Amino acid sequence: MSDKLNQLKEILGEVSDLRHATSILEWDQNVSMPPGGSEARGQQMATLGKVAHEKATSDEVGKLLEDLKKEFTDTDSDEAALVRVTAREFDKATHVSSDYIVKQAIVTTRAFDAWVVAKAKSDFSIFRPHLEKVVDLVHEYVSFFPPADHPYDTLLDDYEPGMKTAEVQTIFNNLRPKQVELIKAIKSAKQVKNDFLYKKYNEGKVWSFAEGIITQFGYDFSRGRQDKAPHPFQTTFSVNDTRITNRFEVDNPLATLFSAMHESGHAMYEQGSNPDYERTPLAGGTSLAVHESQSRLWENLVGRSLPFWEHFLPKLKKVFPSQLDGVSVKSFYKAINKVASSFIRVNADESTYNLHVMLRLELEIGMVEGKFAVKDLPEIWNEKMNDYLGIVPPDDAKGVLQDVHWSSGLMGYFSTYALGNLISAQLWEKINQDIKDLDDQIGKGKFDSLLGWLHEKIHIYGRKYDPQDIGQKVTGSKIDSAAYVRYLTNKYSDIYGL
Amino acid sequence: MSDKLNQLKEILGEVSDLRHATSILEWDQNVSMPPGGSEARGQQMATLGKVAHEKATSDEVGKLLEDLKKEFTDTDSDEAALVRVTAREFDKATHVSSDYIVKQAIVTTRAFDAWVVAKAKSDFSIFRPHLEKVVDLVHEYVSFFPPADHPYDTLLDDYEPGMKTAEVQTIFNNLRPKQVELIKAIKSAKQVKNDFLYKKYNEGKVWSFAEGIITQFGYDFSRGRQDKAPHPFQTTFSVNDTRITNRFEVDNPLATLFSAMHESGHAMYEQGSNPDYERTPLAGGTSLAVHESQSRLWENLVGRSLPFWEHFLPKLKKVFPSQLDGVSVKSFYKAINKVASSFIRVNADESTYNLHVMLRLELEIGMVEGKFAVKDLPEIWNEKMNDYLGIVPPDDAKGVLQDVHWSSGLMGYFSTYALGNLISAQLWEKINQDIKDLDDQIGKGKFDSLLGWLHEKIHIYGRKYDPQDIGQKVTGSKIDSAAYVRYLTNKYSDIYGL
Repeated sequence: MSDKLNQLKEILGEVSDLRHATSILEWDQNVSMPPGGSEARGQQMATLGKVAHEKATSDEVGKLLEDLKKEFTDTDSDEAALVRVTAREFDKATHVSSDYIVKQAIVTTRAFDAWVVAKAKSDFSIFRPHLEKVVDLVHEYVSFFPPADHPYDTLLDDYEPGMKTAEVQTIFNNLRPKQVELIKAIKSAKQVKNDFLYKKYNEGKVWSFAEGIITQFGYDFSRGRQDKAPHPFQTTFSVNDTRITNRFEVDNPLATLFSAMHESGHAMYEQGSNPDYERTPLAGGTSLAVHESQSRLWENLVGRSLPFWEHFLPKLKKVFPSQLDGVSVKSFYKAINKVASSFIRVNADESTYNLHVMLRLELEIGMVEGKFAVKDLPEIWNEKMNDYLGIVPPDDAKGVLQDVHWSSGLMGYFSTYALGNLISAQLWEKINQDIKDLDDQIGKGKFDSLLGWLHEKIHIYGRKYDPQDIGQKVTGSKIDSAAYVRYLTNKYSDIYGL
Repeated sequence: MSDKLNQLKEILGEVSDLRHATSILEWDQNVSMPPGGSEARGQQMATLGKVAHEKATSDEVGKLLEDLKKEFTDTDSDEAALVRVTAREFDKATHVSSDYIVKQAIVTTRAFDAWVVAKAKSDFSIFRPHLEKVVDLVHEYVSFFPPADHPYDTLLDDYEPGMKTAEVQTIFNNLRPKQVELIKAIKSAKQVKNDFLYKKYNEGKVWSFAEGIITQFGYDFSRGRQDKAPHPFQTTFSVNDTRITNRFEVDNPLATLFSAMHESGHAMYEQGSNPDYERTPLAGGTSLAVHESQSRLWENLVGRSLPFWEHFLPKLKKVFPSQLDGVSVKSFYKAINKVASSFIRVNADESTYNLHVMLRLELEIGMVEGKFAVKDLPEIWNEKMNDYLGIVPPDDAKGVLQDVHWSSGLMGYFSTYALGNLISAQLWEKINQDIKDLDDQIGKGKFDSLLGWLHEKIHIYGRKYDPQDIGQKVTGSKIDSAAYVRYLTNKYSDIYGL
């Protein structure tokens, strides 16, 4: 192998170590850190970010990349992919100053703390000044780059390389009326009963059951763990240490099961990444939408399917006999898929979920365009909730304060949740062509063929292929909502007798 | 303030952030990390160590220090102390290459994993090749420095600045016969009963009781936490995030209480460090011996005293009524101070503890001198245990494998445990002069005057004063065993009626 490639890999390895260390500090911040630790933690993360950024954007890296681009011209090789992905990131990173990285880390650490308090007290005014600083940072970030078709493109591209705001808007504009129409049809159909989901369930037992499910999926606990945190998330410290967090909500106890399936979907993607890519930019998932396709596939296509509960409901009934007394598989299946306009995105059913995402995308675009002021967000949020879902949150905790993302400076991110849903359905159609008895296998609690397929077709490639390319390669088409609309229509026609 | 001082502080701040980040990774490794994460973690810690080392030893730091030494000549100012302590560390660090730092991090991460397995299986052969590599590293480390009076001086100085091997040997040679004589006298006295300590105690309840005690001491849980780990330790991520770990041993259930007191003693020292010293080398404890004087003071002088249990035993009895039925305060006090030759250092009583330390010091000096080969350690260990304490460990888990230190590359460290005991007794005599009703206060569960005294006289100074200097300043003398011998003799004369 080329000496220059080795030199590059050595630097990239250190950058990767520093970034993973930051992730460990962030995980600890969410899972373990005592309240007093916050200020210093922000500073520590800022320093790690700054050092990583300096290393990643050094002249040495720039020169090595220039030479290596000439050396590795076989575009399908791992080496060429490494050079290509690294060069793309280098180009982006060199537009951003180290000072900005430090400032961002400090602002977002404080904003995160403020968000936690603001959400607990349902008081947007606590979060507002911090969010204003975050939005200022976002504007500053966009200003570092040459003008794009739309300023939001710059943000979106960080999470979904190559994707344009206009493309997302086209996909969403095509999808929205179909989802709205479906919801309308469901609203006038006979409603399903789901009161048994909201009885009292013991937290520890739900937690264990969740771990049982995801172990059966194939999430490897010897290379991961599940902890309590205010917000469920997945994080990667190495291919052999990819963790998930989860929570238990007394008023929605079984949501813990679906969060675990969701986060394990992310984690299994990371656990399946080619170990040869470790400590390089090729490790991990290729984009947030593809990542989300994995989490949503396990959570919804698998975890909210009839065959899945044919296997797991009898087991769940053994743990919670009184709560689920007399509940048939079909009625449990209907209950967990009940459609209802609701306030919280992460607990939304599949027919309304994307509308939550579309709302956030519109708010973000409005903020980036300067059309929406932070102070007006609660009002705009509530208006749009009323427009899309016909409901208005009773407080900001169930409205504009519900998601962690903005407090962490993540803007440009939300649309990938909906795109992930679309990809999951595209993949599902393809998987069912390849694994003819998939439903039977799921009905027996067997997931190895499914996970094997995902590993072989997607996970193993890490970030070697760009998101739209891997979609094309695996399903034969780019991101498209047709499969998702077919999936939703079939599922809800059955459940609601449409 | 001088521009140059600000420049130096900025660099030192980043070094501090990187080192604290390493501590967070290490804490996670002990408390949370899944087994698969180990290899990558070693690499990550190596990179952080390397980057911190490069920053701390840069020419820029060297030049700033040269100029600042001339600028800050008032030796009692914080600024002068900062320059002095930083210059000492700079001088040491510049003797060591970054490559060595990386190598050491990787070797010790693997050695730690091997030690965990070796200890669990009580199989020294699993740990041996790793320990051999650690000893090679230690020799290499010593070789980086100009010859000292004794090669072990170089190691000792890292933990106890300014202390010489010969000084420690003199102190120990003076102390050993007195401790041996005391143990002999105790052996021929009427033995105390302590069977009730080894009944079945519920882990969760012991854990909560321990947290109750240290909260009452003044350990601030809003700036700390206690977690389970294979080995109790204290670690600092900032003055506002200093954590402790603990364990529960079924066959020695109440040891958890004393470990908590011990580690909280370390943590309260760190929590009391001057906040102005944050992100500089002046933050934290001045040496391991002074650190240990704090932990042992809370564990033994306070936690194994009669007044302490006059307050706490009634409470403990409420939690464990059947286990402690009919046990008087005096008999509980005697039981927890029972003298017995035992295998495990951390659970040893106060009269035998230092002998465990002396054994380790002799082994370390033997390894450094090349007199003892790693392969022979279990045998030498067992021989010395027989010589000193008249017992031979039944297996290596209870012998040479019991301590984590060597697996982490920590050599030169052990003697500070015994030195800490000596300092704790010196401090205790002084404190009792200053706080006349200390016993009464402890008997009422009041520790604020005591903690306040320690904060004011020791903690607040962080690393501003060297260990022997702060001892001199506070107690009027350097490290000396007389106070400890007085303390032991008084205590055990009472307990054993000598």
